[in-house]
Amino acid sequence: GRGGTVETETAVEGAPVAIIMGSQSDWATMRHAAETLDALAVPHVVLIVSAHRTPDRLVAFAKGARGAGHKVIIAGAGGAAHLPGMAASMTSLPVFGVPVETHALSGLDSLYSIVQMPAGVPVGTLAIGRAGAVNAALLAAAVLALADPDLAGRLDAHRARQTEAVAHRPRDPEAQGG
Amino acid sequence: GRGGTVETETAVEGAPVAIIMGSQSDWATMRHAAETLDALAVPHVVLIVSAHRTPDRLVAFAKGARGAGHKVIIAGAGGAAHLPGMAASMTSLPVFGVPVETHALSGLDSLYSIVQMPAGVPVGTLAIGRAGAVNAALLAAAVLALADPDLAGRLDAHRARQTEAVAHRPRDPEAQGG
Amino acid sequence: GRGGTVETETAVEGAPVAIIMGSQSDWATMRHAAETLDALAVPHVVLIVSAHRTPDRLVAFAKGARGAGHKVIIAGAGGAAHLPGMAASMTSLPVFGVPVETHALSGLDSLYSIVQMPAGVPVGTLAIGRAGAVNAALLAAAVLALADPDLAGRLDAHRARQTEAVAHRPRDPEAQGG
Amino acid sequence: GRGGTVETETAVEGAPVAIIMGSQSDWATMRHAAETLDALAVPHVVLIVSAHRTPDRLVAFAKGARGAGHKVIIAGAGGAAHLPGMAASMTSLPVFGVPVETHALSGLDSLYSIVQMPAGVPVGTLAIGRAGAVNAALLAAAVLALADPDLAGRLDAHRARQTEAVAHRPRDPEAQGG
Amino acid sequence: GRGGTVETETAVEGAPVAIIMGSQSDWATMRHAAETLDALAVPHVVLIVSAHRTPDRLVAFAKGARGAGHKVIIAGAGGAAHLPGMAASMTSLPVFGVPVETHALSGLDSLYSIVQMPAGVPVGTLAIGRAGAVNAALLAAAVLALADPDLAGRLDAHRARQTEAVAHRPRDPEAQGG
Amino acid sequence: GRGGTVETETAVEGAPVAIIMGSQSDWATMRHAAETLDALAVPHVVLIVSAHRTPDRLVAFAKGARGAGHKVIIAGAGGAAHLPGMAASMTSLPVFGVPVETHALSGLDSLYSIVQMPAGVPVGTLAIGRAGAVNAALLAAAVLALADPDLAGRLDAHRARQTEAVAHRPRDPEAQGG
Amino acid sequence: GRGGTVETETAVEGAPVAIIMGSQSDWATMRHAAETLDALAVPHVVLIVSAHRTPDRLVAFAKGARGAGHKVIIAGAGGAAHLPGMAASMTSLPVFGVPVETHALSGLDSLYSIVQMPAGVPVGTLAIGRAGAVNAALLAAAVLALADPDLAGRLDAHRARQTEAVAHRPRDPEAQGG
Amino acid sequence: GRGGTVETETAVEGAPVAIIMGSQSDWATMRHAAETLDALAVPHVVLIVSAHRTPDRLVAFAKGARGAGHKVIIAGAGGAAHLPGMAASMTSLPVFGVPVETHALSGLDSLYSIVQMPAGVPVGTLAIGRAGAVNAALLAAAVLALADPDLAGRLDAHRARQTEAVAHRPRDPEAQGG
Repeated sequence: GRGGTVETETAVEGAPVAIIMGSQSDWATMRHAAETLDALAVPHVVLIVSAHRTPDRLVAFAKGARGAGHKVIIAGAGGAAHLPGMAASMTSLPVFGVPVETHALSGLDSLYSIVQMPAGVPVGTLAIGRAGAVNAALLAAAVLALADPDLAGRLDAHRARQTEAVAHRPRDPEAQGG
Repeated sequence: GRGGTVETETAVEGAPVAIIMGSQSDWATMRHAAETLDALAVPHVVLIVSAHRTPDRLVAFAKGARGAGHKVIIAGAGGAAHLPGMAASMTSLPVFGVPVETHALSGLDSLYSIVQMPAGVPVGTLAIGRAGAVNAALLAAAVLALADPDLAGRLDAHRARQTEAVAHRPRDPEAQGG
Repeated sequence: GRGGTVETETAVEGAPVAIIMGSQSDWATMRHAAETLDALAVPHVVLIVSAHRTPDRLVAFAKGARGAGHKVIIAGAGGAAHLPGMAASMTSLPVFGVPVETHALSGLDSLYSIVQMPAGVPVGTLAIGRAGAVNAALLAAAVLALADPDLAGRLDAHRARQTEAVAHRPRDPEAQGG
Repeated sequence: GRGGTVETETAVEGAPVAIIMGSQSDWATMRHAAETLDALAVPHVVLIVSAHRTPDRLVAFAKGARGAGHKVIIAGAGGAAHLPGMAASMTSLPVFGVPVETHALSGLDSLYSIVQMPAGVPVGTLAIGRAGAVNAALLAAAVLALADPDLAGRLDAHRARQTEAVAHRPRDPEAQGG
Repeated sequence: GRGGTVETETAVEGAPVAIIMGSQSDWATMRHAAETLDALAVPHVVLIVSAHRTPDRLVAFAKGARGAGHKVIIAGAGGAAHLPGMAASMTSLPVFGVPVETHALSGLDSLYSIVQMPAGVPVGTLAIGRAGAVNAALLAAAVLALADPDLAGRLDAHRARQTEAVAHRPRDPEAQGG
Repeated sequence: GRGGTVETETAVEGAPVAIIMGSQSDWATMRHAAETLDALAVPHVVLIVSAHRTPDRLVAFAKGARGAGHKVIIAGAGGAAHLPGMAASMTSLPVFGVPVETHALSGLDSLYSIVQMPAGVPVGTLAIGRAGAVNAALLAAAVLALADPDLAGRLDAHRARQTEAVAHRPRDPEAQGG
Repeated sequence: GRGGTVETETAVEGAPVAIIMGSQSDWATMRHAAETLDALAVPHVVLIVSAHRTPDRLVAFAKGARGAGHKVIIAGAGGAAHLPGMAASMTSLPVFGVPVETHALSGLDSLYSIVQMPAGVPVGTLAIGRAGAVNAALLAAAVLALADPDLAGRLDAHRARQTEAVAHRPRDPEAQGG
Repeated sequence: GRGGTVETETAVEGAPVAIIMGSQSDWATMRHAAETLDALAVPHVVLIVSAHRTPDRLVAFAKGARGAGHKVIIAGAGGAAHLPGMAASMTSLPVFGVPVETHALSGLDSLYSIVQMPAGVPVGTLAIGRAGAVNAALLAAAVLALADPDLAGRLDAHRARQTEAVAHRPRDPEAQGG
C-alpha cells in the first residue's frame, strides 16, 4: 500500500520508480502519482528532495538513482521548479516532471521552469497539478511495461476500465443527491 | 542516415521509435528529433499524420503502433495541437509531445494543447521548438536504453561529450570572425 | 424539458443539435447550452464523448453525426480540449466549441486548444464557460433558423425579450434585499 | 473570381456570405476567406466596415444584412476588435469572427475582444490570422451546405482533396530545391 | 446623494458626467465611480447601456451625449468589452473606460478590449476593477476642474486628505482588533 | 510645424499640452502624438523626462506643470514605465499614458505599469505604441475642446474626414502597384 | 522584536535595512521580511512610503536613506508598483523589490512594474508575495554579511537549520491530525 | 579591459564579482554586465557554468565561490533557467539573476524560472535581456560600494553622468543623419 511506500527507506534496491518532490506541500499533488502506481502495483519510493534547500541530497539522489535500481524518476515541484531539470542533469534515466500549482501564477511558473529545458537534458513534462501527477505515474508505467508484459496487461486493463467508466450521458447532480 | 529514414516505409517492423508530425511544415522542427536519433543509432520511422486532415491515418497509426513494433512515439504539432494527445488516447505506448512554435502565439497554444492532458492519458511534453525535438529523441533513447545496455552506453557517451563541449569561458564572436 | 433530453437515446433521428462534452464535470457548463435550446424549443441530444478516454466513441459519433440527422454539433471540453477539433476533423457539419473553465489556467488552455485550429478544419469557438455554452446554443439556433422561419421568429423574440430586460439604471442590491 | 467580388456592389441581393473587415490592412488576412469561398463557388461580398470609424455604416450593414439576402457574416478585425460582436448585436444571422494578428500583442487582444462575448450575443470565433480566415469561410460554407446539397458535395470534395494532399513522409526542402 | 443620482432621469440637462455600464452586474464595480463623484460633488447620471443587448440605446446615448449636456463619459464593461470604444466612436467627448474584472480571465479580456483601440478613436483606460472606477471619476473631475476652480479646489483637498491619511508605519491588524 | 514644437523652450507659458517621454528612443512612438496635435493646431511642448534617470526633473516638471500653463499631460514610457503614474502623483492635471512597445514583452510590461494605478491617482491609458500616441493626442484635444468651440469644430472635422476616408471595399495592393 | 521595529522612528541612525511599502495592505506580505530580519537579528525600520499618494515622502526617504544610515532598502508594492524603482532612482544603495500579489492580475502587474527597470537603475526583484518578502530579507542579510562575519555565521546557521528541517519523506496530513 | 577578464583564470583570488552564464549564446547578453563592471573598474571573472550540461562544475563553482574570494555572483540563463537559483542554493553570497531572452517565450520562461524562488533561497532578479545584465552589474557594484568608498564615488559619478546625458528634448533622427 501507499502508506508502506512512504515509510520505505530511500535505498530500496529494485524499486523501479522514484517519486521525488521539493517539499511537503507538494505531497497533496504528488500523492496522486503514488496512488496511481499503487493501483497498477508498481513498486516505488517517495522522497522529499529540495533542489534549493537540500542540494547535496539532490546530487546524491540523482547520481545514485540508477545504482539504487530506479528506472524512472517522477519529480514534482512548484514555482521556480528546478528539481526535475536538475535531476535530469545528473542522470540519463527518464525523468518526468509534474508542475505543482502555485498561488500567484497558478503553476505557469512551474510549467515553464520544468518544460523549457535546453536541448541536451530532457524532462518529459505533464499537466499542472493532480492530472499531471496521475499521468506521470501512467507514463512511468508505460515505460516499464515495455519490458514487463504483466504490467502492460494491467495498464491495458486500467485503460479499458477507464473507457468503460465514461457514462453515455451526463447526469444532473442535484437530481441524484450528488 | 536521416535521408534513409525518411524514405523508409511506414510498416517497418521493429523500428522502435516513430516520429509523427502534423504537417510538412513541422519537419523543420522535428528533423532535429530524427537527427538526434541518428546520432545515437536508434532506428526510427518518420511520418506525417495529421490529426485534423487525416484522422483515419491517425487511428490506423496509433492503434497499430505496438503491432508495428514501435516502442515509443514522438509526436510534434503546432497550434491546436491534438496529435500527441490523440495518439496517446489510442495506444498505451509512451508518447512524447513536441510543441511546434507558431506565428501568432509563439507555440504557447501548442504547449497548452499538448501538456494539459486530463488524468488518464499521458503525454510527456518537451520544450517548444528545436530543443523540444532534440530532447524528445533523447528521452526516447533513455527509455529504450533501460533494456539496451549498448544504447545506454551511447547515451552516456553523448552526455559526456556534451559536458566536455562546454567551454569554460565565453569567446567574443566578433574577435574570431564568427 | 431538459431532463427529457438527457434521457433521450443517442440515435434519435432528426435531432438537429448534438451537444457533446468530454466528461461529466463539463455538464455544469454545458447544461446552459441545453437549457438555452430548450427555451428555443430546439430538439437536441446530450452525450458524453471523451476524445481521450473514448476515442472509438468519438469516431463513431463524428462519422455518424450527419447520418443520425444532426445538423450542428456543440462540443465542450476543458484543458487540452481536443473534442471539438477532432469531431470537426471527421464531419463537415458545423461544429461549435465551448472552452470549459479549468482550475490552473482558467480555461485559457481550453480556449487555445479549441480556437487555434489549422486552416482546413474549422471550429467556431465561443467564450470560456457558461456564456460560451449559452452562445453556442444561440449560434446553433441561428444556423438552423436560416431554414426554419418559425425558429427564426422564436430567436428574434428571444432577442427582443433580452433587450427589453435590460434595466435603464442599476439598482443597489442591498437596498432591495437582493 | 475574387477580383469580381471585390468590385461587386454592397447591395447585391442574394449573396449569401458577407465578409466585412475593419480596415484595408485586414484584407491581407481576410482575402483568404474570400479565396476559400471562391474555391467553393460560394457567392460573397467583401466590404470594409469600421466599427470605430464608420459606426453608422456598421449599423446600416448589420440591420440590413438579412434584408440584403446575406445568410452568414464573416467579420475580421484586430486589436480592440469590436466589429464581429457589434455586428452580432444587430442581427440574428450567424456571425463568425476572425481575430487579425496585431503587432504588439500578436492578436491576443483581437482574440479576447472577439471570443469573450457575453451570454446572449454569439460570435463563432476562428483562429488568429490566415487560418482563421480560411476556416471562417469553410464554416460559412458548412452552414450553407445544410440546405444546399451541391455545396455539401463540393465541401466534401474539398475535404477529400485536402486529406489526399497530405504526404506520408516529410521531404527535405533543401534536397529538392524547395 | 448617490441614491438620488441613480434615480435621476437619463435626459438630465447639464449633468456633466455620465456613467454607463454594460449590465447590472457591473454596478458593484462602477458604484465606486459614482461614490467618488459624490464625494467631490460632481453631478452625474448612472445608466445601463449594453453594447450587445441594447445597441440602439447605445447609439442614442452616444450620439445624444453632448446634446444632453454631458462633458465626460465613464464606461465600464467586462469580457469582450465594447461599450467604451463604441461610445467613443459616436461622440468626440472624452471617454474613460473601466475594465470590469471577469471570472475566467480576471479582466484581462476587458482590459485588452478597452485599451487597444485603433488610432483615431481614443478611450482613456483605467485599472481593472474598483481602483479603475475610482480613478475614472477622479480623472473626469480633473478634466472638469480645468474650467471649474471650485472643483479644482475640492480635488486638491481630496488629494491632500489622501496624502495625510497615509500612516507612517504599518500597524498589525491582529494587535488592534482590526 | 512639429520641428518647431521640438525646439520650443520648456517654460512656454500657455502651451496647453505637454508631451513627456522617458527617453529619446520613445520619440519614434510619441512623435505621433505631436503630429496629431499639430494637425489639430493644438500648441504643445515636447520634453524628455526620465523618471529613473532624472527624478529631480520629473518632480520639477510635475509640480510646475499647472503653473507653466499646461492643462493636459501626455506621458509615454516603456518597460517598468513609471513616468505617467509618477507625474500623476504630483499634479492633479489630467495625465494620459502611452505604453511604449518593448522588445521582450512587447509593451505588456509598459501597459501593466501604466494602467494598473491604485485608487487615488489616475492615469488614462491608451493603446500600446503608435495608436496609443495618436489617441492620447486626440483625447487631450477632446478635453481641451470642452472649453474651446473652435477646437471642438476642428476635432469634429478630423473625425468626419477620418470617416470619409474609409473605403467601402478593400483593394488588392499588388493589383495597383501599391 | 518586530513590534519594536514597527514603533521605531524613521530617522533611526544606523538601522542598516529599511523596509518600505506602498500601503498598509502590503504589510500582510512585507511583515515576512521584517520577521526574517528579526530572526537574523538584523536591525531594521519599517515604513509606509506611497510613491503615488506621498511622493514627497518618497523623495525625502530615498534621498536621505544613505544619510540615515541605511545600507539596503527593501521595497514592496503591488499593481503599478513604482515604489522600488523610484526609490532606486534617487539612491545608489542596493534596492530589493517585492511584488505584492494583486487581485485581478495576481501580482504579474507588480512583477513587471518592478523587474523591468531600464538599464541604469537596478532593482533586485524577488518572487511575488510572501516568498519574495522572506527572500528580500535574506538577500539583504547576505549583503550585510559581506562585512559582518557574525551575521554571516547566523545566516549560515539559518541555512543549515533550513536544510535540516527538510524531511526525507512526506507525511500524510490526515494520518497525523494535521 | 573586458577581453582581459574573459581570458582570466577561474581561480583568480580576490575578484569580487563572478559572472556566470549557461552557455556561449548567453554572452551576447551578459557581456553588458562585464562591460558595465569594466566601466566602474570592478574586477570580475566571466565563466560558463551550465546547470544542466555541467552540474559538477556548478557545484564546484558555487561551493567554492566564497573561498575563491567572490563576494557577489551574477548569473544569466535562459529558458528553464536554473543556474541562478541553483548557485544560490549552494552559497549564501548574494546572487543576482539575469533572465536571457528566449525565442519562443521572449524570456518570460527565463524570468519565471529565476524570480519565483521559494522562501529560503533568494535570487535578486533583474530585467530580461541587456538592461538586466547592465543592472546586475550596477547592483553588484552598489553592494560592493557599501564597503568601498572609492567605488561608491565612481558609482555616484556614473549616476551623475547618466543623468546629465538625458537630453531635454528629443531629436529627430532623420533630421540629423542618424
